[in-house]
Amino acid sequence: MARTGRRPGNQDTREAILAAATKAFAERGFDGASIRQIATSAGVDPALVHHYFGSKDKLFLAAMNAPLDPGTVLPKVFEPGLDGVGERLVRAFLTVWDSPAGSTAAALVRSALQHEWSARMLREFLVSQILRRATRTLNLDPAEAPKRAALVASQMIGLGLMRYILKLEPLASMTQDDVVRNIGPTIQHYLADPLPRPDVSNKSVREATPRGQ
Amino acid sequence: MARTGRRPGNQDTREAILAAATKAFAERGFDGASIRQIATSAGVDPALVHHYFGSKDKLFLAAMNAPLDPGTVLPKVFEPGLDGVGERLVRAFLTVWDSPAGSTAAALVRSALQHEWSARMLREFLVSQILRRATRTLNLDPAEAPKRAALVASQMIGLGLMRYILKLEPLASMTQDDVVRNIGPTIQHYLADPLPRPDVSNKSVREATPRGQ
Repeated sequence: MARTGRRPGNQDTREAILAAATKAFAERGFDGASIRQIATSAGVDPALVHHYFGSKDKLFLAAMNAPLDPGTVLPKVFEPGLDGVGERLVRAFLTVWDSPAGSTAAALVRSALQHEWSARMLREFLVSQILRRATRTLNLDPAEAPKRAALVASQMIGLGLMRYILKLEPLASMTQDDVVRNIGPTIQHYLADPLPRPDVSNKSVREATPRGQ
Repeated sequence: MARTGRRPGNQDTREAILAAATKAFAERGFDGASIRQIATSAGVDPALVHHYFGSKDKLFLAAMNAPLDPGTVLPKVFEPGLDGVGERLVRAFLTVWDSPAGSTAAALVRSALQHEWSARMLREFLVSQILRRATRTLNLDPAEAPKRAALVASQMIGLGLMRYILKLEPLASMTQDDVVRNIGPTIQHYLADPLPRPDVSNKSVREATPRGQ
């Protein structure tokens, strides 16, 4: 199927690029996918991909139908530094989920629970669009950052799920301020306090049940 | 459709009772549903419901295909009291999800995100089977217990989702001990520490965006 020769602005071209990008990101991850490969797979020139989508980050966000670009929200959360970052992150999260973008966010989470490729896109989103920004801006220790981020992600996605999808009371009808006051300190703890030491003793290793092995 | 006259032990009778129970619990909630109504709707004698399922609690667990009866796990978590309850609850949760029952638990969460009746069953499960037991055994202030339970539920379901369904690293391959050390203190905090004061100032009320109104 020759896809070259289309006019710039052609909706089919844009959608061909998005389809190729979704496949590439889901199969190879954010880092493994390249704009050149995606362009080849869509039958267009790489310059056209840049023309339509700007950057690999923005192409990824478009491919996963992200409700907004974290780059517009997260600098305000992370740039003031670790002090108060927990409350700022919870407030930013609630502001997105309470906005019209919230239903798209809920759809993304629902889809990630049904389809492995969609779960992978959500993981890649968390790692490439949020964790890296946090690590860089907050100067987190790179050896600890993934664990801190996974702990934060577990509390945040659970908050989104319980408040907006399962609608468990009183969490579903608490004010933003009240949620921020209750969950902000947890996020602050996960990002800024010393992490507990991982297992080191033989006893721990023997008793533990590692996942994914 | 006459459903009376079936022999006890008849598989169809058992399934008719379960179908009626699922409908009743999803429509009227745990408290609103009664064994008498369920028996009538299934066309059997209420004594037969008791014969097959024992109690309303057990009928509910069977109707929602619960992977295990919280009554067999939670006394060990709650009866020793508030001291250390966070770590005990996280460890019990991981033990269930790391067992063969884990895939049933994951299926319940997936289903709750797709279907409103299933979400309602999961809410009713959390409230009637877990929250009430915690409130009673831990002597929680009944005015605060629902908020504490919702905060705990948000962290626990997020942990289950990230570790077992989305498989975000390093959370997916951390040992049970390491997860317990990292997330136990959060649960302990939500259950045992003083809650932040809810909004009282006009400013908070004006700025907040309440849900579900």
